[in-house]
Amino acid sequence: MEAVSAGLADGWADPARLNSESRRARTLLDASRDAIADVLGTRMEHVHLVPTPHLAFERITAGVAAARRGCDRAVVGATERDALMDAVQSALGREPDVVAVSRLGHIDVEAFAAAVSQVGVAFAAVQHANQEIGTIQHLGTLAESAHAAGVPLIVDATASIGHVAAPSGWDALVAHAADWGGPAGVAVIATTPHTRWLPVWAGRGEFAPGGVNPALALAAAVALQERMEDIDATDARLREYITTIRQAVAGMDGIDVVGDPDQRLAHVLTFSCLYADGEALVSELDRAGFAIGSGSACASGTLEPSRVLAAVGALTHGNVRLALHPGVRQEDIQAFLDELPGALERIRSRLGAPRLAP
Amino acid sequence: MEAVSAGLADGWADPARLNSESRRARTLLDASRDAIADVLGTRMEHVHLVPTPHLAFERITAGVAAARRGCDRAVVGATERDALMDAVQSALGREPDVVAVSRLGHIDVEAFAAAVSQVGVAFAAVQHANQEIGTIQHLGTLAESAHAAGVPLIVDATASIGHVAAPSGWDALVAHAADWGGPAGVAVIATTPHTRWLPVWAGRGEFAPGGVNPALALAAAVALQERMEDIDATDARLREYITTIRQAVAGMDGIDVVGDPDQRLAHVLTFSCLYADGEALVSELDRAGFAIGSGSACASGTLEPSRVLAAVGALTHGNVRLALHPGVRQEDIQAFLDELPGALERIRSRLGAPRLAP
Repeated sequence: MEAVSAGLADGWADPARLNSESRRARTLLDASRDAIADVLGTRMEHVHLVPTPHLAFERITAGVAAARRGCDRAVVGATERDALMDAVQSALGREPDVVAVSRLGHIDVEAFAAAVSQVGVAFAAVQHANQEIGTIQHLGTLAESAHAAGVPLIVDATASIGHVAAPSGWDALVAHAADWGGPAGVAVIATTPHTRWLPVWAGRGEFAPGGVNPALALAAAVALQERMEDIDATDARLREYITTIRQAVAGMDGIDVVGDPDQRLAHVLTFSCLYADGEALVSELDRAGFAIGSGSACASGTLEPSRVLAAVGALTHGNVRLALHPGVRQEDIQAFLDELPGALERIRSRLGAPRLAP
Repeated sequence: MEAVSAGLADGWADPARLNSESRRARTLLDASRDAIADVLGTRMEHVHLVPTPHLAFERITAGVAAARRGCDRAVVGATERDALMDAVQSALGREPDVVAVSRLGHIDVEAFAAAVSQVGVAFAAVQHANQEIGTIQHLGTLAESAHAAGVPLIVDATASIGHVAAPSGWDALVAHAADWGGPAGVAVIATTPHTRWLPVWAGRGEFAPGGVNPALALAAAVALQERMEDIDATDARLREYITTIRQAVAGMDGIDVVGDPDQRLAHVLTFSCLYADGEALVSELDRAGFAIGSGSACASGTLEPSRVLAAVGALTHGNVRLALHPGVRQEDIQAFLDELPGALERIRSRLGAPRLAP
């Protein structure tokens, strides 16, 4: 909030103009891009700020596809975000080739290598880490396969930047400031000097003409820098909290814990509860002061069953998705674990479910 | 800035989720849409918030065109914004039919009526008021012609909302919060219950999935309400200032004042100076504390000659574009008029231009 206020004071003008106020706004934008580029391991000129991750996915998939004439296939993992799946479908006008994931959520690297080796693949698009179950992909291996096949690799790092070190090996990468504690309204498309894309939209060569609010860009960069300063300590602390919850709920009856227990985002956990329903869990825990997710992480409040959970073969209903922010304390974890069994029991008894050991 | 801070405090959460924090963010967004709808003379459900006017133009033109199968022509005025022209071209894959404007900047209503009556017109798109020269179009007449021909009318009101009363007769309207003193990052697409459009992008039926930052939406609505409270007094005051400048510069040698002197935005004025160049004028006046525009109002600092000035037959070089904000005072106007002749003389003498009477 301080960065937004400072940014509004100094960067309120239109950065496209030539006067002093506009130059200050442009300087703010460029400094923000520079700070983000540093974390992504690239340079400012390859960092493009766009308002939403949806638009980032839409532009980069359409742009890369347009530069690969004659290629109309795309390869994705089974647990990609809806926003990415929609973008790929829209860019190619057809369904992508979906590579299955393991029970822990890892893309099958052999099937992926085979899929990218087909004729006519415009690009592959895979996530760095999954936003629902936390599993981190074997991205190095996937990148090697894509490059061996001469296929550009687009990496969805919207769930990982600010939580773990940025991946390498991508031709384009998408990140989202709101996921690292920055404000809504800033997403990132990073490219490399070798990435080929064509602007097939009304954009005069920019991914998003009109750009983003410079004050939000500044706040996004400041939030990312703060995260990176403490990244190891935060990772260790949140990892311990999630492990505590993971072990506690794994011991409860009728609960299915999802995702890789080790190669995962430190702050994310999903588990599914037999004989409970997602909306009731959200409401019951909300009343107790816990803001959990349920259903598809990205469906607009519809509680549509999660494609991610279906893909890993987990229970798609009654699921609880936790994303701990760095401010969460030990006592919050204990309070959650104290609250959960009672909440579950109340829901199950309302639904007339068989009584399980809590 | 206060509204942004309040909005960040209360509306930081993802409005698509189900918990209390997300519901508050959603409430903020809806209240903002409601306030904007009120000014536009429509209802909340017809007001869609998108991050930039560029995206608003892109989506509404592509969406309306897609709903008019078999129609691949569009009719526009000669002084439309670049962002609209780019969007129309991208939506149809061809150049639109451009209707000429008069010396004062008014679209030729007879030529417009003839153009929309052709076979295969998907839509017409015209501005309410011009952002460079201030001329307000005869929108009632243009709307009648479009409707008589059964052609949807898209109105670019990005330069007028917050300055004059909202127009009527449109099938879709685009507005921009930054133009009424709101923050960058919020544009508006308003539709009617009868507007037909198809989402031909990765959007699941939304113009811009991911939406806008709720805090910026709140600030946009608050800024608009504040503008509307004082709109008549502000109009009268700024109109007097612009008239003062207009008369003063019209008396100087080698200056060409552009646009309708009466049917115009109160706060906008453009004039062109013989033997001067735009970039030099911007720098010279910037040093004196005046942030003026020059060249195309929307070209990204390129000082590309303005299509608007070319269309009305005015000098396209050495132009000064003023947009007074409501905080401008009488003494600022006098200070500007005191500064201008000297600035012009310095520039002209550097360029070795013939000496004109100041």
